[in-house]
Amino acid sequence: MTSAPTAEPPARRKGPTGWSILEGQTEEAPQVQPFKAIDPSRGEPLPIGYHSATPEQVDRACRAAWVALHEVRRRSPEHRAGLLEAIAANILELGPSLINVAAQETGLPEQRLLAERERTTGTLLRFAEVVREGSWVRAAIDRADPERQPRPKPDVRRVLRSLGPVAVFGASNFPLAYSTMGTDAASALAAGCPVIIKGHPLHPGTGELVAWAVVDALQATGFPQGMFAFLHAGGQREKAIGEELVKHPFVRAAGFTGSQAGGTALADLARARPDPIPFFAEMGSTNPAFLLPSAAASQGEAVAHLLTESITAFAGQQCTRPGLLFMIDNEDASKVLNELTRRFNTLPDQVMLAPRIRDAYLRRVLGWAGVEGVELKTDPKRLATPRAKDGSAPKGPVSGAAALLRTTSSTFLSNDTLHDEVFGPAVLVVLCPDERAMANAAASIQGTLTASMFFAADDRNTARRLVSVLEHRAGRIVFNGVPTGVEVCEAMVHGGPFPATNRPDTTAVGPLALERWCRPVAYQNGPGALLPPELRDDNPAGIRRRVDGKWRSGPLSDDEA
Amino acid sequence: MTSAPTAEPPARRKGPTGWSILEGQTEEAPQVQPFKAIDPSRGEPLPIGYHSATPEQVDRACRAAWVALHEVRRRSPEHRAGLLEAIAANILELGPSLINVAAQETGLPEQRLLAERERTTGTLLRFAEVVREGSWVRAAIDRADPERQPRPKPDVRRVLRSLGPVAVFGASNFPLAYSTMGTDAASALAAGCPVIIKGHPLHPGTGELVAWAVVDALQATGFPQGMFAFLHAGGQREKAIGEELVKHPFVRAAGFTGSQAGGTALADLARARPDPIPFFAEMGSTNPAFLLPSAAASQGEAVAHLLTESITAFAGQQCTRPGLLFMIDNEDASKVLNELTRRFNTLPDQVMLAPRIRDAYLRRVLGWAGVEGVELKTDPKRLATPRAKDGSAPKGPVSGAAALLRTTSSTFLSNDTLHDEVFGPAVLVVLCPDERAMANAAASIQGTLTASMFFAADDRNTARRLVSVLEHRAGRIVFNGVPTGVEVCEAMVHGGPFPATNRPDTTAVGPLALERWCRPVAYQNGPGALLPPELRDDNPAGIRRRVDGKWRSGPLSDDEA
Repeated sequence: MTSAPTAEPPARRKGPTGWSILEGQTEEAPQVQPFKAIDPSRGEPLPIGYHSATPEQVDRACRAAWVALHEVRRRSPEHRAGLLEAIAANILELGPSLINVAAQETGLPEQRLLAERERTTGTLLRFAEVVREGSWVRAAIDRADPERQPRPKPDVRRVLRSLGPVAVFGASNFPLAYSTMGTDAASALAAGCPVIIKGHPLHPGTGELVAWAVVDALQATGFPQGMFAFLHAGGQREKAIGEELVKHPFVRAAGFTGSQAGGTALADLARARPDPIPFFAEMGSTNPAFLLPSAAASQGEAVAHLLTESITAFAGQQCTRPGLLFMIDNEDASKVLNELTRRFNTLPDQVMLAPRIRDAYLRRVLGWAGVEGVELKTDPKRLATPRAKDGSAPKGPVSGAAALLRTTSSTFLSNDTLHDEVFGPAVLVVLCPDERAMANAAASIQGTLTASMFFAADDRNTARRLVSVLEHRAGRIVFNGVPTGVEVCEAMVHGGPFPATNRPDTTAVGPLALERWCRPVAYQNGPGALLPPELRDDNPAGIRRRVDGKWRSGPLSDDEA
Repeated sequence: MTSAPTAEPPARRKGPTGWSILEGQTEEAPQVQPFKAIDPSRGEPLPIGYHSATPEQVDRACRAAWVALHEVRRRSPEHRAGLLEAIAANILELGPSLINVAAQETGLPEQRLLAERERTTGTLLRFAEVVREGSWVRAAIDRADPERQPRPKPDVRRVLRSLGPVAVFGASNFPLAYSTMGTDAASALAAGCPVIIKGHPLHPGTGELVAWAVVDALQATGFPQGMFAFLHAGGQREKAIGEELVKHPFVRAAGFTGSQAGGTALADLARARPDPIPFFAEMGSTNPAFLLPSAAASQGEAVAHLLTESITAFAGQQCTRPGLLFMIDNEDASKVLNELTRRFNTLPDQVMLAPRIRDAYLRRVLGWAGVEGVELKTDPKRLATPRAKDGSAPKGPVSGAAALLRTTSSTFLSNDTLHDEVFGPAVLVVLCPDERAMANAAASIQGTLTASMFFAADDRNTARRLVSVLEHRAGRIVFNGVPTGVEVCEAMVHGGPFPATNRPDTTAVGPLALERWCRPVAYQNGPGALLPPELRDDNPAGIRRRVDGKWRSGPLSDDEA
């Protein structure tokens, strides 16, 4: 029993409605038990009840996306660029109400959310440029030679074509930049794919507000509303909605940012389909940092300062924050360790995103601390999980203390648990007897989004050796700096070997992200009228193409001149 | 118990030794029971005994590859291009002995093998050009801006880096172009990856001869022999060798051409590793052809001729040969069907690659014929599997007859078995009541390497509709032509949705194939001495790079001028 779509919900400009958005409209499906977001700064539920999408709504969103895909097939890249720009403008237009809702739902500070909003709209605008410029489709043309012996050479043309509807699973820790219109959704829309958002239950209001910005942009730019759907997903339905999306025949790809367990389970479902679909998961990452001996001697204090900030900013809830620090075990390292310990001990507890994230953080830090050969350097009393008398989470801020632990490279090598990510403001300092042991430890780490290296002139040989190891383990290698604060630029790689991601051949940030939602299709001896515009002789958009092995931007006739 | 490596096996120029090649030398491991290749034109085993690699040899090949990877890390692309060219020259230098061995082991005719050899060496030479030109690594540089507010912009540079040792599983049906130095092995070497070949048991001599050509080329160009290993794999060890390779910690990617069952099983193993590796499998493909009504009326006979040749050439054992033909059910289609039947019935039996391939072919054709609503139009008596009195395969040619079957689109839609590939000279003609039914049937096919469409001017609207469907199902769409005879060119896509491949975002043919063996790595604020040459300010190879969002080929200083 589903009520008729609400025409133009009058409440929507004032705040989230609590209902999923299908084809541009809320749709009430009252049989579903609502869930509520938590304000982690108070440890109390926020007032709005959110209604998870029903199976029928999931199905309808996917069908509408499939229809929309075909409707927009002939739209120009210019048109799509305009949509991305309109979305960016509409997100900005939400003004403080968006920032306030996001702050309430996540406990993240306003300054951080403003920066995240800028990153989100900046990504949309950059992708608009990429789409408008057009050559991201990697068009290639090899012309026919009917005279060739022993058999004629056919005309073969290739271009990237979008896969179809994309399901996006946003992250808890970036309610804007990796969520409803974060980099996955923005790159999928830029590539011409309809997008279906599985809303994150930790920030449903933020997600819904951004979704309305998209709905209005579709309307303003004349796109079918089937290009986008926003499905609230919390409580008992959360997991099922994810599974229904990944299994739906009209969903042709999915992007996920979250836990290794969740990402792996959904990736398995995607692969078990009769027609497996690509599933791009960004999961856990330890982001090791290496402080080489000369740098430890000459810049130890400065590095300790930088690292403390990078590890603990936003309660350590950034996917690129360093979780491991490797040093050669000597006096300089002891000084750095002491300085880090001093700094960590002076940090106040910080509000974390949600009770379950805070509890998992504390559990895992204590798990590390319980390993023989690992020493907790910060105050263990601050790591007790707060519990009310009945065992439930108590009222009050959902907060966690920063934690610093130390161990040796031999203990690190022999304990798998020390290789797993701890999501929160913790670091494990690993002391290595010598540079060879440090290189061995580097070779043993799990795949990671980033690896950082602090070195001075005398460390050059060790640095070189480490680079050759880390190139096999990390998506990005940072020299004399911290990996947090991902620069959104063309050369950025936000990806890495498993478990950082399950598809290290791609990046979630930068223009290469568009290619994830496409595959190459070749057309042999195709008549112009049946070819995608990017492959036509006249090259209407003037994009750069490979023509007979050379780069060309004009129509084919000009190339011959 | 393994004997010492043979220094320079004197027999090797005369023919295959029967032993695996590790680090440039044969190595006898006599505990393994030898297997023999079959001459399918006589149905009898060939004289040489081949010794499957031992687990210890598999392990050693992988370790040697890992060492070699690091040894060649600083070699220039020029050096690598020279290796590819030397391999191509050495393969040609094997002369008629290679062609003779391949013909004996596969039953394929000399002309076809000569063409295949040309394609193989042509691919090596093209990849050498790609490597020498250098821009395939997709280098991108975003320069720093220390003055930027609110925080400085870092220097970020990105390039594709090779993954490491690649295991290659060659195909039964292309003993040269998809085997020991086929497109997978050639693209992996071109990308800088050591290669370990799992030899195909149906053409072990061909594989070993090509392997010696590689060994000599490594020697001549000064590469470490660990860059390449050739492992004989047959009999009881065949499956285990594949599994050992895919699970080995030093194998970092694999390429496979073969059956859906084999590819899927190995892909599962690759994914189940603690550190999953990319596994690129090309598997089964039905390669549907669509004959639209005006074309059936005006060119029916010519299309019947073309299709007969494409379907049955080399006993239908080509991955791109059409296995399904869709027509609108009318008088013109009847004429085409009759013409095809007439042609199929006049074809002599052809030698197939091996008894098990022939037997599977016959079994699957008869499986199709047994589906209610499917009619076998060719002589059923010619499809009986020959058996000796004791039930074993009899002596004499391993041959199979071409088969043509007809059904309706409704039968096709309701029988999954009719959607599976039949590997051999068979085609299922699917008659559709109208163009809508044809489009629905097209939407229902499995993912495929190719789809072909014959149309005349009046078919334009139907053709357009079909293209929009087939873009979601095929890697290549062929207009008014047949899909066999893959053109090796830059724009070619040899790939497609599952089960044609498990990675439709890539192609096994053309320069994009190199990217499969790489992933992007970013370097943030890296000093020149620690960067890959492609990312250095001076751009020593003068490759095309994206610099601050623009294409540049010079050193960075020149770009600023």
